[in-house]
Amino acid sequence: MKLTILGCYAATPRTITNPTAQILEIKNRLFLIDCGEGTQVQLRKNKIKFSKINQIFISHLHGDHFFGLVGLISTFSLLNRNNDLHIYGPKGIKEIIMLQLRLSNSWPNFGLHFHELVSNQSELIFEDEKVLVETIPLKHRIYTNGFLFREKMDERKLNIEAVQEYQIEKCYFQNIKNGKDILLGDGRLIVNSQLTFDPPKPKSYAFCSDTSYNEAIIPLIENVDVLYHESTFLQSEENLASKTMHATAMEAATIAQKAQVQQLILGHYSTRYDSISFFKEEAETIFPNVLLADDGKTFDL
Amino acid sequence: MKLTILGCYAATPRTITNPTAQILEIKNRLFLIDCGEGTQVQLRKNKIKFSKINQIFISHLHGDHFFGLVGLISTFSLLNRNNDLHIYGPKGIKEIIMLQLRLSNSWPNFGLHFHELVSNQSELIFEDEKVLVETIPLKHRIYTNGFLFREKMDERKLNIEAVQEYQIEKCYFQNIKNGKDILLGDGRLIVNSQLTFDPPKPKSYAFCSDTSYNEAIIPLIENVDVLYHESTFLQSEENLASKTMHATAMEAATIAQKAQVQQLILGHYSTRYDSISFFKEEAETIFPNVLLADDGKTFDL
Repeated sequence: MKLTILGCYAATPRTITNPTAQILEIKNRLFLIDCGEGTQVQLRKNKIKFSKINQIFISHLHGDHFFGLVGLISTFSLLNRNNDLHIYGPKGIKEIIMLQLRLSNSWPNFGLHFHELVSNQSELIFEDEKVLVETIPLKHRIYTNGFLFREKMDERKLNIEAVQEYQIEKCYFQNIKNGKDILLGDGRLIVNSQLTFDPPKPKSYAFCSDTSYNEAIIPLIENVDVLYHESTFLQSEENLASKTMHATAMEAATIAQKAQVQQLILGHYSTRYDSISFFKEEAETIFPNVLLADDGKTFDL
Repeated sequence: MKLTILGCYAATPRTITNPTAQILEIKNRLFLIDCGEGTQVQLRKNKIKFSKINQIFISHLHGDHFFGLVGLISTFSLLNRNNDLHIYGPKGIKEIIMLQLRLSNSWPNFGLHFHELVSNQSELIFEDEKVLVETIPLKHRIYTNGFLFREKMDERKLNIEAVQEYQIEKCYFQNIKNGKDILLGDGRLIVNSQLTFDPPKPKSYAFCSDTSYNEAIIPLIENVDVLYHESTFLQSEENLASKTMHATAMEAATIAQKAQVQQLILGHYSTRYDSISFFKEEAETIFPNVLLADDGKTFDL
């Protein structure tokens, strides 16, 4: 699991800071999460292959989280994309994109599928053989979802020494990896646990931005490996955070601590502060494992 | 008159090239012409004061000419702009912007006025005491206008020596600058040409992008000081230019030569070419005064 931060600053794009967008690589899939203005240039700078992005998840319809989407879709067209593209985001996103494509008379030459979200309950919105994606309803000024990405449990790992010892033929290996016991020719039943090892624990990543402090998300993100939680402000600007429905670094850390996550990544910083290290210092008073997102930074998780 | 090129490359924004946007400074006004994705960052890089932009002219609704507009308007809001903002562009532009502002529940705290264009004839769309702006109907795949910016004739310049010689009092100076003759106390009539000099010739700038070769624009841009004409392609890609309704460098130069403009600036280059100097070389075979636009370049005209 690898996370590339394309942008992680609040509000407007600036010469050296970019609005929210990130690429989660998980089980060889590339998911784009949010798509602020300039995301396509950030994708190029970070050498992300455009053609490998087949799913885009948009948290909410504030500009710093989706103004780059229509341009990215247009560029996909110009690059003669073939793959279908799936967009998951709040109701209204389809109308915004389709209106602009219609008025520019530029229809994509690939399948463009919108999956509009309206529920205030967590729901499964994507599933394939390796990965699940569920929404995390957040509390912000407009309808907003975070996203929980979870690897599915892999098949069990073959214990090569054991299968050789029992002289089991290759044609049974898939059944064994699927958890089946084996009846040998001599009538002995070999239970699966003798023939396999546990697969690695599936990884999980929760993206929560933008949101005010919201304990309702804790059951949804409990024990995740990595939580990205917005921290637009420091606790000294708690009033501003509360008024704009954003979180402070301390609040993000409190959520991480209560949900017992492994790792917290902070981001969505207001540009009012001289250094983002203040966010880490504040969060670490509550929760030990804090990393700072920054534009162009990659986390191998 | 000063022109700052924020972006002048065709199609998609890249790490080192930006889609169309430029700032024309004329008579102390700043006009933004087109607004591709990333324009607000280019404005910052070029240290253009956001608050001085009160008029934005959008040529057409292809993404590389307006996808940066909604973000710029949102940023104006975040910066607590007070001045009214006027947007001139094709019908549909208001719907695109208003839909996004509505869905993000982000209404600007300043007056936002749309002037939607539908005419296929040149029309006066802006006028104040110093400057006129008229449309230049262009031929492209969708409805497109160029824009002609013209300074109004200044008042006449006072000949200080002459007014002193005739002992004319200050209270008559404005009348003289407005072109009036003066009747002296002794009955002599002094004609205005004895008291003033001609004002400088008003400057003019024509922006023509995107367009195929179109001689119909020649009467509209005849004798302008500066013509910016798109040259997406070189003559070797004439077929592609014709098919996509763009112009070649040679075609741009032919228009400049036939319209007897003073200066041609080329731009809107396809990124397929190794060097933009090829465009200048090709255009100079037809027309002598050719300059190349490039991102971040400023022309003092």
